[in-house]
Amino acid sequence: MLWAKIKRSPHAHARILSINLDKALALPGVKAIVTGADFPDVPPEKAQIGAAPHNLRDLSRNCIARGKVLYEGHAVAAVAAVSPAVAAEALDLIEVEYEVLPHVMDVEAAMAPDAPVLHDDIFTAGIEPRPTKPSNVSKVVRFTKGDVEAGFRDADVIIERRYTTKPVHQGYIEPHACLVSVAPDGQTTIWSSSQGQFMVRAYTARMVGADIANIRAIPAEIGGGFGGKTIIYLEPLAYMLSKKSGRPVKIVMSREEVFRATGPTSGAVVEVKLGAKKDGRITAAKTVLKYQAGAFPGSPVQQGCICSLAPYDIPNAETTGYDVLCNRPKVAAYRAPGAPIGSFAVESCIDELARELGINPLELRRLNGARDGTKAAHGPTWNNIGYLRTIEEAMAHPHYRTPLGPNQGRGIACGFWHNAGGESSAAVHVNEDGTVTVTEGHPDIGGSRASMAMMVAEVLGVPFENVRPVVGDTTAIGFSASTGGSRVTFAGGMAVTQAAQKVVEELKKRAAITWDISPDAVEWKDGKAYPAGANAGSFEPLDLATIANRSARTGGPISAEVQINAQGQGPGFTTHLCDVEVDRETGAVKILRYTAIQDVGRAIHPSYVEGQMQGGVAQGIGWALNEEYIYDQDGRLENPGFLDYRVPVASDMPMIDTVMVEVPNPRHPFGARGVGEVPIVPPMAAVANAIADATGVRLRDLPMSPPRLLAALDGEPMRQAAE
Amino acid sequence: MLWAKIKRSPHAHARILSINLDKALALPGVKAIVTGADFPDVPPEKAQIGAAPHNLRDLSRNCIARGKVLYEGHAVAAVAAVSPAVAAEALDLIEVEYEVLPHVMDVEAAMAPDAPVLHDDIFTAGIEPRPTKPSNVSKVVRFTKGDVEAGFRDADVIIERRYTTKPVHQGYIEPHACLVSVAPDGQTTIWSSSQGQFMVRAYTARMVGADIANIRAIPAEIGGGFGGKTIIYLEPLAYMLSKKSGRPVKIVMSREEVFRATGPTSGAVVEVKLGAKKDGRITAAKTVLKYQAGAFPGSPVQQGCICSLAPYDIPNAETTGYDVLCNRPKVAAYRAPGAPIGSFAVESCIDELARELGINPLELRRLNGARDGTKAAHGPTWNNIGYLRTIEEAMAHPHYRTPLGPNQGRGIACGFWHNAGGESSAAVHVNEDGTVTVTEGHPDIGGSRASMAMMVAEVLGVPFENVRPVVGDTTAIGFSASTGGSRVTFAGGMAVTQAAQKVVEELKKRAAITWDISPDAVEWKDGKAYPAGANAGSFEPLDLATIANRSARTGGPISAEVQINAQGQGPGFTTHLCDVEVDRETGAVKILRYTAIQDVGRAIHPSYVEGQMQGGVAQGIGWALNEEYIYDQDGRLENPGFLDYRVPVASDMPMIDTVMVEVPNPRHPFGARGVGEVPIVPPMAAVANAIADATGVRLRDLPMSPPRLLAALDGEPMRQAAE
Repeated sequence: MLWAKIKRSPHAHARILSINLDKALALPGVKAIVTGADFPDVPPEKAQIGAAPHNLRDLSRNCIARGKVLYEGHAVAAVAAVSPAVAAEALDLIEVEYEVLPHVMDVEAAMAPDAPVLHDDIFTAGIEPRPTKPSNVSKVVRFTKGDVEAGFRDADVIIERRYTTKPVHQGYIEPHACLVSVAPDGQTTIWSSSQGQFMVRAYTARMVGADIANIRAIPAEIGGGFGGKTIIYLEPLAYMLSKKSGRPVKIVMSREEVFRATGPTSGAVVEVKLGAKKDGRITAAKTVLKYQAGAFPGSPVQQGCICSLAPYDIPNAETTGYDVLCNRPKVAAYRAPGAPIGSFAVESCIDELARELGINPLELRRLNGARDGTKAAHGPTWNNIGYLRTIEEAMAHPHYRTPLGPNQGRGIACGFWHNAGGESSAAVHVNEDGTVTVTEGHPDIGGSRASMAMMVAEVLGVPFENVRPVVGDTTAIGFSASTGGSRVTFAGGMAVTQAAQKVVEELKKRAAITWDISPDAVEWKDGKAYPAGANAGSFEPLDLATIANRSARTGGPISAEVQINAQGQGPGFTTHLCDVEVDRETGAVKILRYTAIQDVGRAIHPSYVEGQMQGGVAQGIGWALNEEYIYDQDGRLENPGFLDYRVPVASDMPMIDTVMVEVPNPRHPFGARGVGEVPIVPPMAAVANAIADATGVRLRDLPMSPPRLLAALDGEPMRQAAE
Repeated sequence: MLWAKIKRSPHAHARILSINLDKALALPGVKAIVTGADFPDVPPEKAQIGAAPHNLRDLSRNCIARGKVLYEGHAVAAVAAVSPAVAAEALDLIEVEYEVLPHVMDVEAAMAPDAPVLHDDIFTAGIEPRPTKPSNVSKVVRFTKGDVEAGFRDADVIIERRYTTKPVHQGYIEPHACLVSVAPDGQTTIWSSSQGQFMVRAYTARMVGADIANIRAIPAEIGGGFGGKTIIYLEPLAYMLSKKSGRPVKIVMSREEVFRATGPTSGAVVEVKLGAKKDGRITAAKTVLKYQAGAFPGSPVQQGCICSLAPYDIPNAETTGYDVLCNRPKVAAYRAPGAPIGSFAVESCIDELARELGINPLELRRLNGARDGTKAAHGPTWNNIGYLRTIEEAMAHPHYRTPLGPNQGRGIACGFWHNAGGESSAAVHVNEDGTVTVTEGHPDIGGSRASMAMMVAEVLGVPFENVRPVVGDTTAIGFSASTGGSRVTFAGGMAVTQAAQKVVEELKKRAAITWDISPDAVEWKDGKAYPAGANAGSFEPLDLATIANRSARTGGPISAEVQINAQGQGPGFTTHLCDVEVDRETGAVKILRYTAIQDVGRAIHPSYVEGQMQGGVAQGIGWALNEEYIYDQDGRLENPGFLDYRVPVASDMPMIDTVMVEVPNPRHPFGARGVGEVPIVPPMAAVANAIADATGVRLRDLPMSPPRLLAALDGEPMRQAAE
């Protein structure tokens, strides 16, 4: 096995004039080097496997630069050598000549008419007439409902504010890593941890020009993903190095590489304008969202537009989103991609409106809250949603009534994520001893294996302990879209349930063969086959283990596999309560108490659901208070490590209380909605609203870190970063 | 990961008085030691997963001794340590106190009334009245047809001979090896190479008392098996060591351990009595087969009884088989288990009869050969068999007419193997780009992956190159019996064919959805869907790749899995021609030319079929000329290595010609029979008959090694080993 390392750009934006590999290739122990020239040109086709769509050409150029480097850390070459040390030494021997170009980091600068343009072949999509000049705005999205200007004319009060957020990283503990082995006949095995082995297989195949069937992608256990592993970075490089060298090649990113070269979510500027009657009825909402895409198009701005207004029943609304290129790493999905950014702005502004109107902010939300029959600003009409129940639960919760002390405040914020369905496969194999194996195609990033096993055990009527859930590689199970979008318990659960139901039918058939009666005359109950009906005859019930043990005699092994494209995912709504205490001397914010109330549909595995809710809140608190990327004037990241990029640790957190509201999703066999994403949506606004409640000072720029809060408390306008 | 080594008995038969582990456990780096006391008592239940049935209690006691050691090399303890060196050092520190018992090595000695008895709880099965005294004869099998004594009274000529064979090893190049990881919650992964990952899983589960669902058995690529890897030796030891130590444990046998402690096939004594009319019609046959079982019951004597007379249409026959315990390693399956031994005797004796009658030996076989409608001596009536065609092809073959020189001779022998069916699972997954993955549950020991892919490609109408065949682990595919008995291309092929047919039905359905017509109005031809029939409408055909690419929109991914218990395997017959030249000075035999003619049913992958035929012949020639176990007076093996146990090498072999006769098996979708086993059946007799033809000297004891042949040529009766 060889170890590979990646030569990365030191510049935020530069033209590659030449790459000289001679000295590096001459280093003993170096077995292969690849640059962009080794990779096929991939046409600009859209592909979507799970959460986020990708333009395959961009994905290819993000894996390794061609012609230009577009951000500091952009891969330029990769070296495979006998040891990591030799590979590192070889990197220093690669000579790259650059012509440094002007760079642009922030959305408003990138949208300026005179901004350096990253791509000369990208023209803004979604506007008429089609532009003739390339732009850093890759697309504009817009949703409208009613007549927004008339709505503002109807309003008694209008609030208009500007909010900014910083890019934040998913912060998974395990860096990206892969091992790729390409045999001389092209038969390839990839071991890597990701949110989708089928995604790894499909994208790698396209990046390197291989048949999908020639690639077997084996999902390693994942050390965290949170959306950031719905994309590939390393596999095509390792593939080409393995092909060139004839040996398996392993690449493991350092933490620094993770920060410099993998996708955080967007930093953004969001403008919100709300109009309302004195009684609190919101008459109009207008939002403008400008999201960093990084070096290639694809920010989650559309989800930001959709999700931030989704909790409200607003008669007139207009929301506009801009996907803005800049010289940063290409953004990647991050838990409820796009939603927390827009929601920070809208939920903060709702709070400002409530204060302006003198109406309790929870009451204001109840008054304007989406309910069954509400037509959302982005189009659909809600059905079977539990949003108002989360508000009512919040109002009734002891947390909401607990008195606050000095320098303490309470914030409220709500959130929405639509959850996802899509393609899932599942197989249920009955073993000879009556135990059961269930194989799914989705990496387990939040406990989904246990949920799958529980649903199968429930359908078969056997103890949970008898069912072993396994995540299969790409040859072990039918195609399955990536884990993400809170889709797995919904879509995967639907697939395993159907597979288990097919197994029950087969078990009944086998009992019928044993008894020589019709399968229709067999009933399955509590893990056993019983003769059913007057004419079925009288037989001792047959349990699953007995039927399994005799299966060779009744037709062979018993298994069932199901493939579906799951429809009918249930939207998820949530309401959060947050208490903070502000240290006026240091500007530090302590989270005193936090309660997340969420419509979870049906909690298949309640403690895992709680864990998802708590995890989302914890990440949201980090986003709110501390996490940010700090770049120098040359576009070089100054804090690429967990010492300087501060995620919350256990001692920063109170116990996060959860309340699971169960409004079952009628289109899922067990009522499941997704649960993993919506909890990250409200925390930033909840914290901001709590700080405002505690101090009377409104922070509209993330992170609300001690220096920024201290400056605001001191009445000094802190120098505002663009976003 | 820890490395384990096994402490083995130095005695052929001894009582274990005590085992003292104290010193070994005190050695730094030793992490766990297990002895028989660590394993559950497994009840004496029969289980069969593929080729051979096993008594689970015996299997457990073969893996690690309890109370007594029954052969030199029997495992007594196993040590897991931080390195192989430390583990080896620890073995020497384990103190085992033995009471040495008298031992017995050979069948006739073991059958003697005063023989040392290996097991005091084994009473001969298959005889009446049921014996009350324990015996080394574990069972007697008998088949009769007609009236054998009357048949001999009708005969003009009677020949009665005694033949002996030595145990020979399968000679796989890769020794047994495994890596077992038992997690604290019992979830277990086993990596090992075997002929059946489901066999490994099932037997290990029983030996250690685990649920099958808790074990995932991953099939490593196999470095040869030939039947010898249809059983486990190491996995339960590694499992218990891993459980005790909390770490993954790897065990790799040395070649010496493979010889001392894994199953060769039986050595045997076979008596054959044939009666015939002067015109060559055989009137009666009586055979007695005494096979070494090794230390536990289970020789393949029944197959020896069945297969050796199967090629003949004999009106009166009686065959009796004895399964005889002795202080040798438990025998394991070896290519056409049992058949070559009995056939060596019967096919030699047929040759002796032909010479006695003055009838051409091929002509004699044609005269008495089994044909459609013949009732075999063991019961069944043949249908669709190609035996006579193999004889006719032999008669017509140029080889048969080539003149021979001095000291050269030509031998003929025939053979039979019934081939096998049984439980197989297969899955066919259509990938997004139109390539196809086919997953089977059988380790590929002879090229079966290619055959599976070819059958799937044929059904789907796509190029072979688009189909990737994969052997799945026990969670990747439904239960599949082991590879063995020449069952995989037959049974596995039936399963993949049915799965591919289900995929075609699904592809037609998806085309129908696309065109909004009935699936009945869609035809699948050459990899494409066409509208069929007058009312179907007019549409451009849709190829597999197009349907695959759009599958999300028409219902989800496209896969199909099938589980079957395959019936209808087709018997396999063969006729071999062998020319030898004898060096009268050294006794060395050179194989000049060899032609194997075989009814292969239908050759799915002709060059692999040829390879199977050539491989079987090569192993048979080794068995005929050189291979034997040499034990000293204490029952200790003297030649446990490939220097002293001489398998044929390439320079010993001529090019082996093959003639594939194709009489399709009507019960297989492509006409497949098994092909891998029958070629090893005739070579020993073919060589013996050729030596007799060349020299006039008849060798009836294997191996026909230079000293033995030289002695016979010199007219000196060589001291005859018992078998």
